[in-house]
Amino acid sequence: MAQPFQNIDRLSLNQITTNRWNMKEAVDGCARAGVPWIAMWRDKVADAGLAASKRLAQDAGLRVSSLCRGGYFPAATAAERRERIDDNRRAIEEAAELGAEVLVLVCGPAADRDIDGARAQVADGIAEIVPYAQQCGVKLGIEPLHPMYAGQRSVIVTLEQATTMARRHAAHEVGVVVDVFHVWWDPNLYREIARAGEDGRILGFHVSDWIVPMPDMLLGRGMMGDGLIELRRMREAVEQAGYTGPIEVEIFNQAIWDTPGDEVVATMKQRYLEHC
Amino acid sequence: MAQPFQNIDRLSLNQITTNRWNMKEAVDGCARAGVPWIAMWRDKVADAGLAASKRLAQDAGLRVSSLCRGGYFPAATAAERRERIDDNRRAIEEAAELGAEVLVLVCGPAADRDIDGARAQVADGIAEIVPYAQQCGVKLGIEPLHPMYAGQRSVIVTLEQATTMARRHAAHEVGVVVDVFHVWWDPNLYREIARAGEDGRILGFHVSDWIVPMPDMLLGRGMMGDGLIELRRMREAVEQAGYTGPIEVEIFNQAIWDTPGDEVVATMKQRYLEHC
Repeated sequence: MAQPFQNIDRLSLNQITTNRWNMKEAVDGCARAGVPWIAMWRDKVADAGLAASKRLAQDAGLRVSSLCRGGYFPAATAAERRERIDDNRRAIEEAAELGAEVLVLVCGPAADRDIDGARAQVADGIAEIVPYAQQCGVKLGIEPLHPMYAGQRSVIVTLEQATTMARRHAAHEVGVVVDVFHVWWDPNLYREIARAGEDGRILGFHVSDWIVPMPDMLLGRGMMGDGLIELRRMREAVEQAGYTGPIEVEIFNQAIWDTPGDEVVATMKQRYLEHC
Repeated sequence: MAQPFQNIDRLSLNQITTNRWNMKEAVDGCARAGVPWIAMWRDKVADAGLAASKRLAQDAGLRVSSLCRGGYFPAATAAERRERIDDNRRAIEEAAELGAEVLVLVCGPAADRDIDGARAQVADGIAEIVPYAQQCGVKLGIEPLHPMYAGQRSVIVTLEQATTMARRHAAHEVGVVVDVFHVWWDPNLYREIARAGEDGRILGFHVSDWIVPMPDMLLGRGMMGDGLIELRRMREAVEQAGYTGPIEVEIFNQAIWDTPGDEVVATMKQRYLEHC
């Protein structure tokens, strides 16, 4: 088993974890706590302004592990799908400006009952934005979501599926993001982590925990150590598969959101060292 | 695409769908509505008595499509695992007495964070009960549950995994139960339905629907036609894979439970003809 971390050099605060903090508060919170990475959300970037967000992070010496999120490709009409592409192009521009390591793609649900059709629309959408992402120097990371979100957030629901889709493109163009909450249940998980790593496709690693009973389907993620996920085993697996980049703590949880941010960050650091 | 059904010869009321009905009420409700099959739950069988449950069904001319449920194999101690085995033996005896087509196995969650260990305990548990099930003339059907139940109800979460586990035994001993709610999201679904059918492993087909937003993780299933699942496509796939047995309507939903049973059964019949 991998050794515990001795420092937080790879720790990143995904700012959804401290959802009540605006961009300045999140950057300041990371700086106070010595957290070297931040993952930004587009709504919070928009609230603060793109240039200001970049400056805040730079001035604090923070690096941007990812921008959340592009994707949501399927739609009922060609016009809507075009709008989604346009929005993804803006997300790519923002990721480039922020110097984000990766633009995370949450691929979106089907517009109807045709899940295979929606999956084809995802593939088409990604193919459409890859050239622009390359031009801007931005890598795209397909994040498979937990199958319980298949109806509302993503028709891409397994790491196998995400990697297979990424492989339609070069490894420096499109990869995958491994989020423990979304993939921990998968009987093929470790095989698929290894496969994603074969040509360096793992572009991100997100941690949280699966708590039971789950208080809410969307806002029910737990702090590392509070649930069932074999965090260190998965961290070791992604490392063996070649991923040594930032590790984002991404927790959607109302109780954690209601806790003062500095307290959340302190707990996050401690749990990261203990459990990841 | 398969043609709509012209009759309800294959329709089965899984009695959880009319959860407020006791055994007699459920049997009478099926008889009034001309539903030829019923799937029984062990707690309701226990309430009515095993012999009485059997007699009620026989007198009404109902056949028992399945008994729900055996399983729950993993546990922290050998003594607890032994208790689970003993309980499964009782479930087998009940299924035999009722003449149920299959005993459904909901395999249970892990007792700790060791999901692989729990899966091994499931395999061991099934291996332990197969001889007794054979002796009693009962087939065992492994039901993969939706991955959102991996922490609380079953570490067996994909059809691929269930079929692979079933294949450790003869096809007349152990098969799988395909429930649309649990498997609809799976990118490998149709491949795996075909694989399960190769040697006749599909022992049951359960329908309901996936509604969005889902009102509750456990009690959030929808009536057929109210959600996203491609019901007829899946019905066609299991038929092409060789399954032509009863089709159970199994709906955990508080609002449906709060609706008068006869009304639920009438809607169920209509939706079955329209959507399955």
